[in-house]
Amino acid sequence: MTAKVSPSDNSAKFIFETPHMNLLVSFSDATKGFSSGADSPREYLERSIERLESREPTLHAFAALSLEKARIAADHATRRWRQGTQRSPLDGMPVGIKDVIETLDMPTGMGCAAISGPPTRDAASVLALRALGAAIIGKTTTTEFAGAYPNQTRNPHDITRTSGGSSSGSGCAVGAGVLPAALGTQVVGSIIRPASYCGAYGFKPTFGALNRGGCHDIQSHSCLGVIGASLTDMWLTAREIAAQVGGDPGQPSLAGPRLTPEAVAPTRLAFIETPGWQKASDESRTNFEALVKTLETLGTVIVSRQNSNEICAMEAELVDSMSVALDIGCYEMRWLIKSVAQTDPSSISLMASDRAHRGDSLSPEYYQSRLERRRSIRQAFSTAASQVDAFITLSATGCAPLGTSTTGDPAFNVMASLLGAPAISLPLLRDGGLPLGVQLVGAKHTDQKLFSIAGAIVQTFQDPHR
Amino acid sequence: MTAKVSPSDNSAKFIFETPHMNLLVSFSDATKGFSSGADSPREYLERSIERLESREPTLHAFAALSLEKARIAADHATRRWRQGTQRSPLDGMPVGIKDVIETLDMPTGMGCAAISGPPTRDAASVLALRALGAAIIGKTTTTEFAGAYPNQTRNPHDITRTSGGSSSGSGCAVGAGVLPAALGTQVVGSIIRPASYCGAYGFKPTFGALNRGGCHDIQSHSCLGVIGASLTDMWLTAREIAAQVGGDPGQPSLAGPRLTPEAVAPTRLAFIETPGWQKASDESRTNFEALVKTLETLGTVIVSRQNSNEICAMEAELVDSMSVALDIGCYEMRWLIKSVAQTDPSSISLMASDRAHRGDSLSPEYYQSRLERRRSIRQAFSTAASQVDAFITLSATGCAPLGTSTTGDPAFNVMASLLGAPAISLPLLRDGGLPLGVQLVGAKHTDQKLFSIAGAIVQTFQDPHR
Repeated sequence: MTAKVSPSDNSAKFIFETPHMNLLVSFSDATKGFSSGADSPREYLERSIERLESREPTLHAFAALSLEKARIAADHATRRWRQGTQRSPLDGMPVGIKDVIETLDMPTGMGCAAISGPPTRDAASVLALRALGAAIIGKTTTTEFAGAYPNQTRNPHDITRTSGGSSSGSGCAVGAGVLPAALGTQVVGSIIRPASYCGAYGFKPTFGALNRGGCHDIQSHSCLGVIGASLTDMWLTAREIAAQVGGDPGQPSLAGPRLTPEAVAPTRLAFIETPGWQKASDESRTNFEALVKTLETLGTVIVSRQNSNEICAMEAELVDSMSVALDIGCYEMRWLIKSVAQTDPSSISLMASDRAHRGDSLSPEYYQSRLERRRSIRQAFSTAASQVDAFITLSATGCAPLGTSTTGDPAFNVMASLLGAPAISLPLLRDGGLPLGVQLVGAKHTDQKLFSIAGAIVQTFQDPHR
Repeated sequence: MTAKVSPSDNSAKFIFETPHMNLLVSFSDATKGFSSGADSPREYLERSIERLESREPTLHAFAALSLEKARIAADHATRRWRQGTQRSPLDGMPVGIKDVIETLDMPTGMGCAAISGPPTRDAASVLALRALGAAIIGKTTTTEFAGAYPNQTRNPHDITRTSGGSSSGSGCAVGAGVLPAALGTQVVGSIIRPASYCGAYGFKPTFGALNRGGCHDIQSHSCLGVIGASLTDMWLTAREIAAQVGGDPGQPSLAGPRLTPEAVAPTRLAFIETPGWQKASDESRTNFEALVKTLETLGTVIVSRQNSNEICAMEAELVDSMSVALDIGCYEMRWLIKSVAQTDPSSISLMASDRAHRGDSLSPEYYQSRLERRRSIRQAFSTAASQVDAFITLSATGCAPLGTSTTGDPAFNVMASLLGAPAISLPLLRDGGLPLGVQLVGAKHTDQKLFSIAGAIVQTFQDPHR
């Protein structure tokens, strides 16, 4: 990677001159005032709650709230920051937990009316957040079983549109400036897509890098991640959780510095079309191409299927990635859907029911063949990844679709999910005046490097919230 | 493997002339009378319940019971067998579910007073058993968090002794003849050891072969398995569950014929000492050696560290397997223990608390180095396994220890657990007049072959219950 690019180049500004990023409220920025008393976690929380109370009635980002407990946590953190004894950089940070992740003090509903059990225990990530001092403000909405069946969560930038899914409430609450960070999970496009639609940052780590214990997104390439108001808020949240509770059993946990990795401009990026490019809106493509052009002007070599055999081979392998991911997902999730449906079959969507039926119709041998296909796609990716610092593409086919009958197209997202590769969405583009993300994808376990590259790109485009 | 060995050799009898195997009650044997009406699942169940009511007050094998629902399931199965429309070979079979596996109609306590939540949903395996028509009779006791801290479950052959653990109730209920099959899990010695102590058959499949969804034994080499009254009862239970719900996400599920694999005598077995042999009682060793001698006489070549470099190298690799397994276990389980302890720290054993502390003291880098060590042990195993049909050793260091202050020594069991390899315990030996198992271990995904070998060995030693 080359030295830092200059952030003063004027050509870099035009793409994101849109007001949506002004909604984001970073916690790490605010902590600077915590020791002097100029600001405090409790005051920060109250501002969050104010925005929550004003916007939640239209947005529907939360499945459950725990404001009084959050206030107590923030008060404790306020005292600690004043004394210089804060537990972590997240001490007192308001945070939301996607409603597929278990919590001791709130039920876990999985976006499904049939699941109304009481609170159980804290998931590994929630236990970690409590130990770090975070103020857990509530459970954020999810689509049913974290799948494609939509919910009523609205886009904070246009309430006639979806916030995306499945981490709908996490994307919405961060994008609306209610929260600086929220946990999400992704098995197809469930972190990167809502982050893109809601104008937030999104981070889906390398498979297994954050402990999914107590989380009901159980598939063999599902991943726990973070939607955040800045790269720093995301990195600190993910990195501190990893330090507390590690990764999935048998997997390396997120590694790297405790502070956000320093910005380093990429030497060589690969633009990949993925199955998404053909579906992307004209404006999305134009804006993305302008962004890439700027990076090129500033010295980054951009390769693509046009001039690289490895990228070309990889793009060819990606053609059926969605159907591979769907088959694997249906096979792996069917028992959970069927188990829940036992109580009240009518409370399960037809889409979930179809998904379980499709899973049942697949033989173990066919499932194995799909895992084998996944391995072969991963191999092609590995070869291509060795040629570049990272991959760059859109985070979504355009801005959030109108209505709430779909959570949008995940065609740009399934790749990183299926590969188990880290992905970051940066809220740098616009489409129809609404937010759209740029997506970076790296080789497995290059999460730290991906943050460095993301940092340089954000710097280049002068994000005031980096 | 060679042709079937003759079961008529008299020298084969002396080892197991002990009454303990007479307690076992096979379900698959009984099904022969179900279509004629000579017997029925409901009558079979009532006999189970009779034994349960007589023995449970002293044995404490169950954490919860669901007898009325089991009766309803058995009645449905009775009708289906008469009509020849039984759902599966397990239709109406009374079965117990280890209390770390979730059930819709009974709480899941994990052997821990702090966990008293209500029923939640059916785990994948439980959902499968219901679909197969099984009569789920109750939750069987587990040690706290399926760990080493003991419980009050007694040995059915001597109530002054432990039934072993952590699948204590499953071993006990099957060994006592209350159940023909019960689910267990193993991460160190939790299936093979209680099976050995209780005079039952035990099967810990290849890692991932049976879906652990909804099961709280979450470690990176934990495995769902079966304790059963016969090889057939075990195979049918495991194989039918695999057919219904597959294996762990991303893993191949148990493969092989739907009926029990045919008995085939092994050509070549490797006797492995493991860290257990030095701790085994004199009588255990003598009896085991006599059994192996008989197999040798009947034509099986036996290799060992004495005459095979590969076995020697593998035994050397196994030396620290227990400490590797403990480190990995402490690191992976700590969040769950701490999460539960939040509600009421005093209800967690000091042993569990120490385990969580130990886990917390290990760095992610150290954990990675232990996973690396596990990979290296697996490599040595793989090399050795290519030389033989299977490995043979004791299932435990002797009969069940006196009292209930320990669940016994798992020194013979940790190997297969850490390796992710399939293991079967056969109730063919005795020690101090009490049951002791012979353990077979195979290369990964040779579960079917291991059943064939087990079948031949049981046949050789004339088990009336095979």
